[in-house]
Amino acid sequence: MTTRRDFIKTTTAASLAASILPGFGFSKEGDQKVRLGFIGVGLRGQNHLEQALLRKDVEVVAICDVQQRMIDMSLGIVATAGKQKPQVINDGPNGYKKLLERNDIDAVVISTPWEWHTKMCLDAMNAKKYVGCEVITGMTIDECWQLVTTSEKTGMPLMMLENVCYRRDVMAVLNMVRQNIFGELVHLQGGYQHDLREVKFNDGLTPYGGGAEFGEKGFSEAQWRTQHSVDRNGDLYPTHGIGPIAMMTNINRGNRFTKLVSYSSKAKGLHNHIIKVGGENHPNAKIKFKLGDVVTTMIETSNQETILLQHDTNLPRPYSIGFRVQGTNGIWMDLNKSIYIEGQSKQAHRWEDAKEWLDKYDHPLWKKYGNDAAGAGHGGMDWFVLNAFIESVKRKTTPPQDVYDAVTWSAITPLSETSIKQNGATLEFPDFTNGKWQTRKNLFALDDTY
Amino acid sequence: MTTRRDFIKTTTAASLAASILPGFGFSKEGDQKVRLGFIGVGLRGQNHLEQALLRKDVEVVAICDVQQRMIDMSLGIVATAGKQKPQVINDGPNGYKKLLERNDIDAVVISTPWEWHTKMCLDAMNAKKYVGCEVITGMTIDECWQLVTTSEKTGMPLMMLENVCYRRDVMAVLNMVRQNIFGELVHLQGGYQHDLREVKFNDGLTPYGGGAEFGEKGFSEAQWRTQHSVDRNGDLYPTHGIGPIAMMTNINRGNRFTKLVSYSSKAKGLHNHIIKVGGENHPNAKIKFKLGDVVTTMIETSNQETILLQHDTNLPRPYSIGFRVQGTNGIWMDLNKSIYIEGQSKQAHRWEDAKEWLDKYDHPLWKKYGNDAAGAGHGGMDWFVLNAFIESVKRKTTPPQDVYDAVTWSAITPLSETSIKQNGATLEFPDFTNGKWQTRKNLFALDDTY
Repeated sequence: MTTRRDFIKTTTAASLAASILPGFGFSKEGDQKVRLGFIGVGLRGQNHLEQALLRKDVEVVAICDVQQRMIDMSLGIVATAGKQKPQVINDGPNGYKKLLERNDIDAVVISTPWEWHTKMCLDAMNAKKYVGCEVITGMTIDECWQLVTTSEKTGMPLMMLENVCYRRDVMAVLNMVRQNIFGELVHLQGGYQHDLREVKFNDGLTPYGGGAEFGEKGFSEAQWRTQHSVDRNGDLYPTHGIGPIAMMTNINRGNRFTKLVSYSSKAKGLHNHIIKVGGENHPNAKIKFKLGDVVTTMIETSNQETILLQHDTNLPRPYSIGFRVQGTNGIWMDLNKSIYIEGQSKQAHRWEDAKEWLDKYDHPLWKKYGNDAAGAGHGGMDWFVLNAFIESVKRKTTPPQDVYDAVTWSAITPLSETSIKQNGATLEFPDFTNGKWQTRKNLFALDDTY
Repeated sequence: MTTRRDFIKTTTAASLAASILPGFGFSKEGDQKVRLGFIGVGLRGQNHLEQALLRKDVEVVAICDVQQRMIDMSLGIVATAGKQKPQVINDGPNGYKKLLERNDIDAVVISTPWEWHTKMCLDAMNAKKYVGCEVITGMTIDECWQLVTTSEKTGMPLMMLENVCYRRDVMAVLNMVRQNIFGELVHLQGGYQHDLREVKFNDGLTPYGGGAEFGEKGFSEAQWRTQHSVDRNGDLYPTHGIGPIAMMTNINRGNRFTKLVSYSSKAKGLHNHIIKVGGENHPNAKIKFKLGDVVTTMIETSNQETILLQHDTNLPRPYSIGFRVQGTNGIWMDLNKSIYIEGQSKQAHRWEDAKEWLDKYDHPLWKKYGNDAAGAGHGGMDWFVLNAFIESVKRKTTPPQDVYDAVTWSAITPLSETSIKQNGATLEFPDFTNGKWQTRKNLFALDDTY
């Protein structure tokens, strides 16, 4: 702890990052704009596009999608922003390669279905682009390794755009962790507990609900995301929970995940939803979903913390990441918005409202940019994650969430699938850094730079 | 669900229990008092003693302990209650055998250190006594089997006095489960998250805190309980969490635990506490504690529910069992005292205060006996657990928590220890009913009888 705090005092993120960075494909230029290409401008890509268009340091050069409806919506967003119309590529699933051919694009933002992420990231890095990719980068362990080796070979960074790392309360708690408020960390929890039934099924016209359709007859995420619930059983969406936890515990920087085990419950929620919305005779009522309604995963770290992750997307329930950060001095949980710090909380053995603590330890980044972020998606955190990516590109430095984070967090999915298939076997966690975790430093959000 | 509800309508607990009960060692007698012996009258035994003395249907015949201080305190309790002085046995660790020799004792209440429970339960059943034993009945799988076979052979029931099954909110939720409010159950959570540092260490004179002593130099639970944290790593105290969950999911009655896995965090809390209270030079500062500060266990059932248990007794934190009951229709959690039931909760995707629901579904037992229980320990639940035991003895029937429950819940401890030793191996869960779980019926708290 002491070491890290001293380190924060004496070093800025950017200077340190530069010193450990491999060579890059393009040269430094003062205040040149970051020239962005968007691969995938569905609803999520449009969020990023809208944020990018607000920035003075970004030029949107090209957008690419396979659906004219999404392109039309995106061009509307560009027009509303009063910006120049970008090149439009709508040329089938491999159309993105045309975008990558442009030498005047520095970086790409990928917001496509999960199953396209690895291929597109690999192609983009090989085309010497910085890559910002939506969550889930690597659906198999082999894909994870391909991303690492390609990033190392090309020198091009991959940042997975995990936004929850930038949630205001999460960053305040990270700040508290770094100031030793919780003492030595012992146990952490997170997850993705979000009733996605009306994301997974809709009427084919509107994105949320109104029907029991998915796949070709669905719209937006239902077109591709739902099939994963048919084919796979595991923690399909671990990164919102594990990203913040990994940053608090310095994973890949002095600490690493060592082992993992997952259990899955029965799968009832999606079938029930189809019956409820579409009736017993709806053709989708015959489908068997592999994805258990609640998948629970335990992870151990080399520093002997335990981590609990929960994936719960098929049942009626309020949204909750379910964070818990517990150390030798105290504990924070987001479900009850409460905290307890020994010797400091008002009453012994009693929760206190976390708000005062979260305000007091508000992260410097939020203090500085809270107003800029105010309009952005997901309570402002979308602003910060795109900002970190753009600032990294401008500085030609490694992003604060790097390729090792991207694959380490994503690898939880295939590992949990295998653990469940093997009837609850504990699996060793791959070290994607090949030993570099022992000496790497945590550069995530050390100050108010980005 | 339908089957069970019909069943409740048409049958009383007592009549059904009698019909499936093996033969007993003593005959039915109208309003004869239950003649009780107390083995162990430390602080926990004194709670039970105090409750028993309040009852008109109980006669306390004998008490037994190895410490004069505890006996003196107990005799004070008897005198305050204005009851006749019982026989007092203070004759070393095997003195309880003298108590068991008395033919005028129907039943014993055992409240001794965990390591004595099995031996005392076996001896008591062999002496043809009904046995009510404090939690943890069986510290090894072999001990669990001995308890089962001895109960079957002697025909004498063993009830583990798990009180949290009778917590008011827990019973209301059980009532809701049985009325199908949650739909089909999918995932449940519980645990024992209780900062026991001032139970595990004291000054040798007072029971809670004030020093860093345990073992011979400690007092009350610190005399024996703390040593388990030195020697063992596992979920040492699973029954408060698992008991209610087992009753809600009909474990050993149409459902069973099939497998289990446990992970353990680092062990820092107890050492830190010794340093804080006793200083770095305190002799106990050299002790290595095996018990991880947070032990997390996952269990799967044959009906494909998943269960999560947490054991967290060494760190500063507010008390929480951490219940979660989740089904296809909704979810209840006790941490945020909230519930969500699809189509019934006021706002979609939003928690609502559980209070209205808990009031509406208040269990018939609490409605009837809430006033009687008001003064008893642990918010009244101690009244109900002793009541269930006494009423079972009076009716010469199997208690609603029976020997199979006692060992199934207790077996989580040795299984979790083995799982952790084997680096997170998933273990098969023994079937202590030898197949009878498939046809047994759940008789726990079916109505307002006991």
